[in-house]
Amino acid sequence: MNARLLGIGVGPGDPGLVTLNAIAALQTADVVAHFAKAGNASNARSIAATHLKHGVEELPLLYPVTTEIPRQDAAYRDALRGFYDGAAEAIAAHLDRGKVVAVIAEGDPLFYGSYMHLHVRLSPRYPNEIIAGVTGMSGCWSAVGTPIAQGDDVFTVLPGTLPEYELERRLADTDAAVVMKIGRHLAKVRRALERAGRLDRAIYVERGTMANASVMRLTDKLDTFAPYFAMVLVPGWEGRP
Amino acid sequence: MNARLLGIGVGPGDPGLVTLNAIAALQTADVVAHFAKAGNASNARSIAATHLKHGVEELPLLYPVTTEIPRQDAAYRDALRGFYDGAAEAIAAHLDRGKVVAVIAEGDPLFYGSYMHLHVRLSPRYPNEIIAGVTGMSGCWSAVGTPIAQGDDVFTVLPGTLPEYELERRLADTDAAVVMKIGRHLAKVRRALERAGRLDRAIYVERGTMANASVMRLTDKLDTFAPYFAMVLVPGWEGRP
Repeated sequence: MNARLLGIGVGPGDPGLVTLNAIAALQTADVVAHFAKAGNASNARSIAATHLKHGVEELPLLYPVTTEIPRQDAAYRDALRGFYDGAAEAIAAHLDRGKVVAVIAEGDPLFYGSYMHLHVRLSPRYPNEIIAGVTGMSGCWSAVGTPIAQGDDVFTVLPGTLPEYELERRLADTDAAVVMKIGRHLAKVRRALERAGRLDRAIYVERGTMANASVMRLTDKLDTFAPYFAMVLVPGWEGRP
Repeated sequence: MNARLLGIGVGPGDPGLVTLNAIAALQTADVVAHFAKAGNASNARSIAATHLKHGVEELPLLYPVTTEIPRQDAAYRDALRGFYDGAAEAIAAHLDRGKVVAVIAEGDPLFYGSYMHLHVRLSPRYPNEIIAGVTGMSGCWSAVGTPIAQGDDVFTVLPGTLPEYELERRLADTDAAVVMKIGRHLAKVRRALERAGRLDRAIYVERGTMANASVMRLTDKLDTFAPYFAMVLVPGWEGRP
């Protein structure tokens, strides 16, 4: 039995930020699985497209449409749990037939990625391997050319979904930060940065490693529209020599 | 003039975790610079060795020997500042002759890397580009197969050099953490984790992506010897479904 589960990070978006190990692992896969919203192409698949074996079997894992249900709702959690259970069993069916199944993941598989939900369900049962990837945040600060943290800096990743007072408190208590999942939280994040005294350093990044990237000082962003995957960088290293 | 400064991340140690962009950028370089301690090989150079153009000019940047001087000392800071000034001018001399100079960096160039000291000195004066890399911490949690952060988790990177009460306070106030630069701070980090109630989840990782990696629960590590680059992972996602 060659059954093997591979969690493959394909990086933040630029197909050139895929690693050699990711490419090599994709050549060994019998089945390539990828997450997407129903009706949308998988971002991970788009990034890895040129490295898929011709004719390899694909297994799209389509998120259930749950936008009408509030995220705190038990029904939302149940729907998601059921979805991940089902996705894991679909993959297990291939593994049980001795197949190598690669799950491709944007960024790094074990850093805020959907693959993690499969990993915790399947890794106790099957041989598995993770291929680390370049994270979305690394892609963004590199595209911007902004040193993010140095020396003895404390660095914090914050979801924009946190309450305003939590964002403010944590932004005031770290040297460097990345605020992710900006989306409809932009106005709140901006207020929290201002009250934490960090607004002047903040950089807004949209589609950081794509050809159509949008980068500006957050103080220069005059509207409050932002996509879910936009992020705000708060560089540390204030005492730079 | 083709003068161009490239900051190239070569990933955490495994040569297979180099990206296609890093390899392509190395082919364009006239000069490849790398940091090392005097008397030691450069880690970044070892990782990238197979991708260097045959006969490419190399520029080793050797840290001054300052181990006798306490890090808080002004003389230490002056020695380091002078070293980075000199390294930047050595690179500038090549750039002024129209050369493409690549500085290779372990992990990601703008995340706690020495390259940042060159970037802040040279990027205002010369065209430049950063190639993001897989960070050391991604390499470690991937090697261990440990999901580190998910959903609305707060994730914090802490240097082991922080005072014990600061480590304890911050470890108790985050969902997930990575403590870097463990070295001689291991006993202190362990005490801080215990008092923060996080010791049971902590994983000790040494040379995470190398063949001779050492990984164990921190509670199973009975001595207090650790190399400088060891790290401790504190996985979040405690409410996993």
